[in-house]
Amino acid sequence: MNTLFTHCTLFPGTDSSLINDAFLAVSGNLITHLGEMNDVPEFGNARIIDCRGKLLMPGLINGHNHCAMTLFRGLADDLALSDWLHHHIFPAEKKHVSKEMVYWCSRLAAAEMLLSGTTCVADGYFFSGEAAKALRDCGMRAVVGHGIVDFPAPSVSDPAKNIEAVASFLDEWQGADPLITPAVFAHAPYTCSPKTLIRAKELADRRGVRFFTHLAESQREAEMIIDLQAQTPLGHLEHLGILNNNAILIHTVWLHDQDLDLLATTGAHVVTCPQSNMKLASGVARVPDMLKRNITVGLGTDGCASNNSLDMFREMDMLAKLHKLSYLEATTLPAQTAFGTATSANAKLLGLPDIGTLKVGMKADLVVLDLQKPHLTPFYNPDLLVYAASGRDVESVMVNGRMVVEKRKVLSFDLQETMTKIEEIAGTLKA
Amino acid sequence: MNTLFTHCTLFPGTDSSLINDAFLAVSGNLITHLGEMNDVPEFGNARIIDCRGKLLMPGLINGHNHCAMTLFRGLADDLALSDWLHHHIFPAEKKHVSKEMVYWCSRLAAAEMLLSGTTCVADGYFFSGEAAKALRDCGMRAVVGHGIVDFPAPSVSDPAKNIEAVASFLDEWQGADPLITPAVFAHAPYTCSPKTLIRAKELADRRGVRFFTHLAESQREAEMIIDLQAQTPLGHLEHLGILNNNAILIHTVWLHDQDLDLLATTGAHVVTCPQSNMKLASGVARVPDMLKRNITVGLGTDGCASNNSLDMFREMDMLAKLHKLSYLEATTLPAQTAFGTATSANAKLLGLPDIGTLKVGMKADLVVLDLQKPHLTPFYNPDLLVYAASGRDVESVMVNGRMVVEKRKVLSFDLQETMTKIEEIAGTLKA
Ligand SMILES: [Zn+2]
Ligand SMILES: [Zn+2]
Repeated sequence: MNTLFTHCTLFPGTDSSLINDAFLAVSGNLITHLGEMNDVPEFGNARIIDCRGKLLMPGLINGHNHCAMTLFRGLADDLALSDWLHHHIFPAEKKHVSKEMVYWCSRLAAAEMLLSGTTCVADGYFFSGEAAKALRDCGMRAVVGHGIVDFPAPSVSDPAKNIEAVASFLDEWQGADPLITPAVFAHAPYTCSPKTLIRAKELADRRGVRFFTHLAESQREAEMIIDLQAQTPLGHLEHLGILNNNAILIHTVWLHDQDLDLLATTGAHVVTCPQSNMKLASGVARVPDMLKRNITVGLGTDGCASNNSLDMFREMDMLAKLHKLSYLEATTLPAQTAFGTATSANAKLLGLPDIGTLKVGMKADLVVLDLQKPHLTPFYNPDLLVYAASGRDVESVMVNGRMVVEKRKVLSFDLQETMTKIEEIAGTLKA
Repeated sequence: MNTLFTHCTLFPGTDSSLINDAFLAVSGNLITHLGEMNDVPEFGNARIIDCRGKLLMPGLINGHNHCAMTLFRGLADDLALSDWLHHHIFPAEKKHVSKEMVYWCSRLAAAEMLLSGTTCVADGYFFSGEAAKALRDCGMRAVVGHGIVDFPAPSVSDPAKNIEAVASFLDEWQGADPLITPAVFAHAPYTCSPKTLIRAKELADRRGVRFFTHLAESQREAEMIIDLQAQTPLGHLEHLGILNNNAILIHTVWLHDQDLDLLATTGAHVVTCPQSNMKLASGVARVPDMLKRNITVGLGTDGCASNNSLDMFREMDMLAKLHKLSYLEATTLPAQTAFGTATSANAKLLGLPDIGTLKVGMKADLVVLDLQKPHLTPFYNPDLLVYAASGRDVESVMVNGRMVVEKRKVLSFDLQETMTKIEEIAGTLKA
């Protein structure tokens, strides 16, 4: 099946200029041609989608999510991190996390993400096989990390069996589906022993899959690691031999200058989650200092319980504004850099170099945005994608060459069925 | 004309609980009944609007805007405040601000605000008569401040005639239209001399209209006032006798503890604009410290050139998250407090006590939100209005008893005509 998008405003990605009255051609799952309408080639047997008044841009990538936590969206807001985690989230997870919950709540996340222009997500949670199935069934691209903690989890009751469980998850999913890339997600150095971290990382390296971990999210956590390990959180991971370009560190709010210098030499990547860090009052990651050191920094929403939105447009806006403020310098983290964190940088750190920008030969993961809206008028330049657009401006979405959303209707699965299932599952929490 | 909203989830406002399966009745421009569907009275001759799956809430109030600046949305982003102001905004204003520009660009702002659930705005700009006409013509409630600066402005070329010009604006608009309340807007202590500030405030007090001024937005401005007046910006205004409960101070980022204590004793009000202060790297207003002192704090977007969105949902989210971060305390500024700044607090400080909450006897300014969306599911409580909803979830809007938006279509004016006009006017800037 070929698709030809015509008469669009084309934004290929960060560091590219807008191309007015442009076309983009998709064959199979690849972008095969793009340019000005004047140069549109013969392209027989294609479905033509007229995009007058619309903008075509790369699909956004959510660098960090716990998809199934949509169930806990807004369940416990405005609480201190440890109160929130120990008295609300952990008990709710203990009671409500099941195979079925992960499957359906990951579908709910997929609906929200696709409808807000996110075409790829890096997930990490329990019952990762169910998350992988759900995201695949919804037609979404995903890197799915199998969650590891050193205590009995809803999915793996005996922590001694964790590495085994991850290995069989990798066996099942490596190469199994073009949309799904399995990975290893060791929760954090305060929930995983040094030995577990080392074994998890060794497995990831051996299988050639990404290794994720939360790191240095809160000051309290950073102090705890310093007490226990006589190292900063980052120094601890370096000491364990975990930091190389196969490692993705989530949050990394509490880093010293020396940590940043060390991080830069290792090639490890960072995913920052500004809204989650703000809402839980964790602090501000030093993203501009990381970028200065050429550390690859991607962007994620974190789970729905600590945000409470999966809209990556909102996240880009927050990222850009937050760092202008924290550096008291309005030129810091310009809109296009923020856009890059959610597209090309996330693609790079997730090891998916063929998504994140619209170029010939790249996978056809793209978003059509309706520009004919008062809040996007006038449209002088693509900075408005960061400072004014919202996920709700997304009109159509293509993942891997397949239209999954059109005119704000989900095509790739039965949204109503998912909404009904969620109301059932959520009913037990409301009660 | 009577309207009966049935089967809605009713959120009357901050500090109220949700009422499920509720009704709300409007007669003329007033709310006459509300409650559970069980208790719905006979209400003959009413249009019935079935709101199953929808939430009814008070219309949001934007406490600070320069409506006509929609023309400059995204024209100059990611620049330092003084560079932005002196090399981009002031020259653009000099060249492009005219009666026609203010009229049409204020209409564009009205479209964006109504479509995102804002039913009332406090505006301040040049050619305020045109802004008042535009907002009235669009069916929006507004407090329209006549802008005053001590240099030749596009609307009043001789600054000596400023007070006279404001007086005739008040003559024309006081009591002239149920939707429009005129006011006085002295731009700032660095663009208005002490004498101008005093005369402007005297006029406002004499006429019983609100007095607005920008204050202590940036550190540089605060230092400048200290140099010139040997007072903090707030001390300067107090010294001039300007601070009472008829005064509304915009921004007030750079205040000391003594300033806050002083402010509390005067009864003057504050409107905070977190996104503008972040984007221009001005700093963080100490909102929680103000609230502790019982200072009334409202919320505004500021103009489109420094935000770049007029979506008050986004602004509430930013306000709540920003202060959790700046106080490193997740319980700071809970969602419902943020909602209050954009509704009841703004109503109070603007001197419009009959809007901002849904109660019998209040004006019928209200918003219908579609809850049947993945990103608002599950909906455990109204905190999601702050942390997950967006202006784009607004389905219908009523102002003063009149439906102005229905199913996301503007009913109160010809939006397409406005969009076409804006493209014409913006064309001269793009060139
Ligand atoms: Zn996380
Ligand atoms: Zn302003």
